[in-house]
Amino acid sequence: MEDIILLSHGSGGESTRKLIEEEILKYFRNDILEELLDSAVFNLHGKTAFTTDSFVVSPIFFPGGDIGKLSIYGTVNDLSVMGAKPLYISVGFIIEEGLSFDEFRRILQSMKLASEECGVKIVTGDTKVVEKGKGDKIFINTAGIGIIEEDLDWRGRKIEDGDLVIVNGGIGEHGIALMLERLGVKSGEEVKSDLAPLNSLTIPLLKSSKGVKFMRDPTRGGVAGILNEISQKYHIDIEVYEEEIPIKDWVKSASEILGIDPLYAANEGKVVMIVSKDEKEKVLEFLRVHPLGKDSRVIGEAKKGNGKVYLITKLGTKRILDTLKRDLLPRIC
Amino acid sequence: MEDIILLSHGSGGESTRKLIEEEILKYFRNDILEELLDSAVFNLHGKTAFTTDSFVVSPIFFPGGDIGKLSIYGTVNDLSVMGAKPLYISVGFIIEEGLSFDEFRRILQSMKLASEECGVKIVTGDTKVVEKGKGDKIFINTAGIGIIEEDLDWRGRKIEDGDLVIVNGGIGEHGIALMLERLGVKSGEEVKSDLAPLNSLTIPLLKSSKGVKFMRDPTRGGVAGILNEISQKYHIDIEVYEEEIPIKDWVKSASEILGIDPLYAANEGKVVMIVSKDEKEKVLEFLRVHPLGKDSRVIGEAKKGNGKVYLITKLGTKRILDTLKRDLLPRIC
Repeated sequence: MEDIILLSHGSGGESTRKLIEEEILKYFRNDILEELLDSAVFNLHGKTAFTTDSFVVSPIFFPGGDIGKLSIYGTVNDLSVMGAKPLYISVGFIIEEGLSFDEFRRILQSMKLASEECGVKIVTGDTKVVEKGKGDKIFINTAGIGIIEEDLDWRGRKIEDGDLVIVNGGIGEHGIALMLERLGVKSGEEVKSDLAPLNSLTIPLLKSSKGVKFMRDPTRGGVAGILNEISQKYHIDIEVYEEEIPIKDWVKSASEILGIDPLYAANEGKVVMIVSKDEKEKVLEFLRVHPLGKDSRVIGEAKKGNGKVYLITKLGTKRILDTLKRDLLPRIC
Repeated sequence: MEDIILLSHGSGGESTRKLIEEEILKYFRNDILEELLDSAVFNLHGKTAFTTDSFVVSPIFFPGGDIGKLSIYGTVNDLSVMGAKPLYISVGFIIEEGLSFDEFRRILQSMKLASEECGVKIVTGDTKVVEKGKGDKIFINTAGIGIIEEDLDWRGRKIEDGDLVIVNGGIGEHGIALMLERLGVKSGEEVKSDLAPLNSLTIPLLKSSKGVKFMRDPTRGGVAGILNEISQKYHIDIEVYEEEIPIKDWVKSASEILGIDPLYAANEGKVVMIVSKDEKEKVLEFLRVHPLGKDSRVIGEAKKGNGKVYLITKLGTKRILDTLKRDLLPRIC
């Protein structure tokens, strides 16, 4: 086979068949996918979660991951924070002519391993190829389906004055690592995306405590973005304690140099939770023994209010923590 | 709001929120989507079909449709040919910076109308923006979920010697109309894509006859491509009668000039069926009173064999009808 992907690989003819059967299926094969019909078919019963994300991250390989792993974990995380057990994934590739088979295979292998790790099956897919200069190496869309056990559905639990904001570790790592990589900065081994699948954390946590009232992964827009969404959606104020926000040293120094506030930088292995005050200890205890939660911290508190987020600074002053107004970090995921 | 889409509309900040709430939600709003959580949540019970397609068609507006309508109908059709009633759709936009809001709104409006027509809800989505020159106006991924009533599942019905190949009307219209449009050929009103949603045809047909053993929409790769897939998958031969293939006059003349065999050109409102001989009359009777089936024809027959498709020409000779070997029609869907 040629060593780069050509337009003909997307034309629906013999090259497309070969690409699918000899490359993609080789990595993703399972009993449902290999039927290769227009839709995958399986049985589902109950409360179903359905999500999608397109991944246009640049560069496609970065410290701590690649676009393939990101596309699986990203969709797994969108299901996981809803309390859904991720089950089935669809994959849509949009490839720019000229992508090397070597790179494509590394991405396929990475997706294969990521899906096995998360216990999800890639069951249906689609591959398109566009002309050179009409894409950027590869874009990947994934959609995912999961099932929510009835008592793990946190929607409808009322957020109240005094509820706590918890995050499971250092923030801003994905966004800042990507920016450093783009700038060609040589960095130490500790500099990498926090990319990780959250299903092994969120589902057991929701089982262990009914005090979790909201969960969301702070990707684009960062923690500040998510907190603003929560406060506006549930008509509460949120106070964030600057001093309590976990930020790794390399993120701190790099974000100072880059002039990027880590509160606005993307995360790919973090979850922001609203937890009732009574359950604080139980939740923190659970989180801190989990590999993805050992740096968990209470970073703020919900207050009666009208949809504003405030940062209580290290100096004790209080200022509005708004959403991102300018174009900070394009193509971070 | 600005009159073109900018990178900042994809950054996850205030512009992204505005784009989603003031533009996209305005068109797509429904009870599930407007929760705007990381996943849509709904109840599902039974045999579920799940499919995805990315649409990279160029140009994005073409005679008979546009990329928005195509993205809804395309996924509806992938579900419909499996016998699934389409229910829920996810939408992922990848927009090239500089797309005008005017064009984007026309696409949104078109998707809104198409989803209403098909009775599906757009329940979850994602929007990314890439730099100018790293995309091509807009790519759309849709994934879809449908439910299959147990006795409408044709998988497992055995294709036998003597079964008939039926198509619901003129072939090649989408592909040829697109090619003419790209070449800037001024054409009459009859020249347009056959783009149409098949759910109103396939589901009632499967209810009315248990003789349907296979269904697939012949998009990329055309009717010849699908017939080769069927013959290889089920280890049968298929004989196609050239004389019986419905082809509109404008497709015939245009494809002669373009040097494209309509058997390889894409369709977006057609379904190729394998039907047991006994049910031929019942199926044709049903199809011919349906708006999308009035030109339905038996175009071939399944034969014991080993996976080859033969064309019986108008002159009575027999030749292999292979899959597409060369790059014929890039970015047709």
